[in-house]
Amino acid sequence: MHNILDHKKMTDFSEKLLQRRTIRKYSSENIDDKLLNELFVMGCRASTTGNMQVYSIVINRDNQMKSQLAPLHFNQKMITEAPVVLTFCADFNRFNKWCILRNAQPGYNNFLSFFTAAIDALLVAQTFCIAAEAKGLGICYLGTTIYTADKIIEVLKLPKGVVPVTTVTLGWPSGKPEQVDRLPLEAVIHKETYKDYSTASIENYYKQKEERADSQQFVLENNKETLAQVFTDIRYKKADNVYFSNTLLHVLKEQGFM
Amino acid sequence: MHNILDHKKMTDFSEKLLQRRTIRKYSSENIDDKLLNELFVMGCRASTTGNMQVYSIVINRDNQMKSQLAPLHFNQKMITEAPVVLTFCADFNRFNKWCILRNAQPGYNNFLSFFTAAIDALLVAQTFCIAAEAKGLGICYLGTTIYTADKIIEVLKLPKGVVPVTTVTLGWPSGKPEQVDRLPLEAVIHKETYKDYSTASIENYYKQKEERADSQQFVLENNKETLAQVFTDIRYKKADNVYFSNTLLHVLKEQGFM
Repeated sequence: MHNILDHKKMTDFSEKLLQRRTIRKYSSENIDDKLLNELFVMGCRASTTGNMQVYSIVINRDNQMKSQLAPLHFNQKMITEAPVVLTFCADFNRFNKWCILRNAQPGYNNFLSFFTAAIDALLVAQTFCIAAEAKGLGICYLGTTIYTADKIIEVLKLPKGVVPVTTVTLGWPSGKPEQVDRLPLEAVIHKETYKDYSTASIENYYKQKEERADSQQFVLENNKETLAQVFTDIRYKKADNVYFSNTLLHVLKEQGFM
Repeated sequence: MHNILDHKKMTDFSEKLLQRRTIRKYSSENIDDKLLNELFVMGCRASTTGNMQVYSIVINRDNQMKSQLAPLHFNQKMITEAPVVLTFCADFNRFNKWCILRNAQPGYNNFLSFFTAAIDALLVAQTFCIAAEAKGLGICYLGTTIYTADKIIEVLKLPKGVVPVTTVTLGWPSGKPEQVDRLPLEAVIHKETYKDYSTASIENYYKQKEERADSQQFVLENNKETLAQVFTDIRYKKADNVYFSNTLLHVLKEQGFM
């Protein structure tokens, strides 16, 4: 039997997860190294393929370094305003070096190994973030890391075998933003096999999102007919996606993963 | 100022994260749908790119389905022994269908979009796992999903635009395994820029791991000279990595992401 007391103790945490929101504005208060280290220890308890730990984390606190990173994240203010910026990297470099030193021939210069290392890095990133939020800190993920990985590699001096996969800004929250919407659970869960979506189910699942005042405002502001067009024509455009796909595939090749 | 009381309440959770271990043996007790749903709601509170939620989760409880999945996970017993098996998928299919229905032209048939969706799926997976562990459940990640994605796609009937990225087995723990080792924190953390590893630092960081009795036993059992050789020659071999890289790249193409 599982421990009921234990179960009860965790209710606070469950409530916290349900109430979570991304934090983009931070107070001027710093984060001390001791707390940051504790969070890293927890983060590194995340599952990792074969206990290889094929990831690295680069910490940026220095203003000059953050200023160099800012344009690579399209000048999103969180980069310069957050006391701590973390770049989570897929990293086979350390493991390869260990293998060579131990008379073992590493065979990790391929796409599978990159993706394995990326999974490792992302599980650590998310464990770190949840641990940080449990301590009252706020986080924001930046998807831009994989768009400009080539330039981030230069700034952070990442060697072959290392690819940045995501960036997290971290700080004490300044204010409590509205919690954003999510699709109904049924929209993302499939039982036993994938049930493909009918027109009726898409209508049903996206109805609430489309009817929100902020969504409608978004459509108006952007001079579009539908919310979906705001995504396809403005936020995540085909031309950009194709351009950044080529950059990212080139990075994988340059870093020795293709 | 951050809330000190709140900070204190979360100590139990921090302790739990520090004490976590992967669970590969489960009791026969089932997991009720209500609890599973709660965990999914928490999981879906994870950060997601542009709030697109480009992921899906396939739940398998059915024994016949689990038997079909088992060989695709190299017959690891957790698949058939866990009451619940979850396959987390990168999914642009639902979003694309919504775009088309709303007179918007989706431009997500490329590598960047796949990787964006994979990040989404992995952040949800890890949030789900941490929420589950906080409730006393045990989890195990299976890295095999990306090795045999082509066959998992057939069994789970995943349409174009959907790629399985990881699998998690879930159940109430039967026993408490030893906690596995981790590299010292300094081994994975870099301040401001990446400091590449010297021979001395590799020696230093891997010393503890190599000196463990279980590591030495592992080397003996496998008839190898070094622990690193167990990885390169037996557990994660070059020939396998190259073979599965080709399969995975082929899957990305077939599912419309290249």
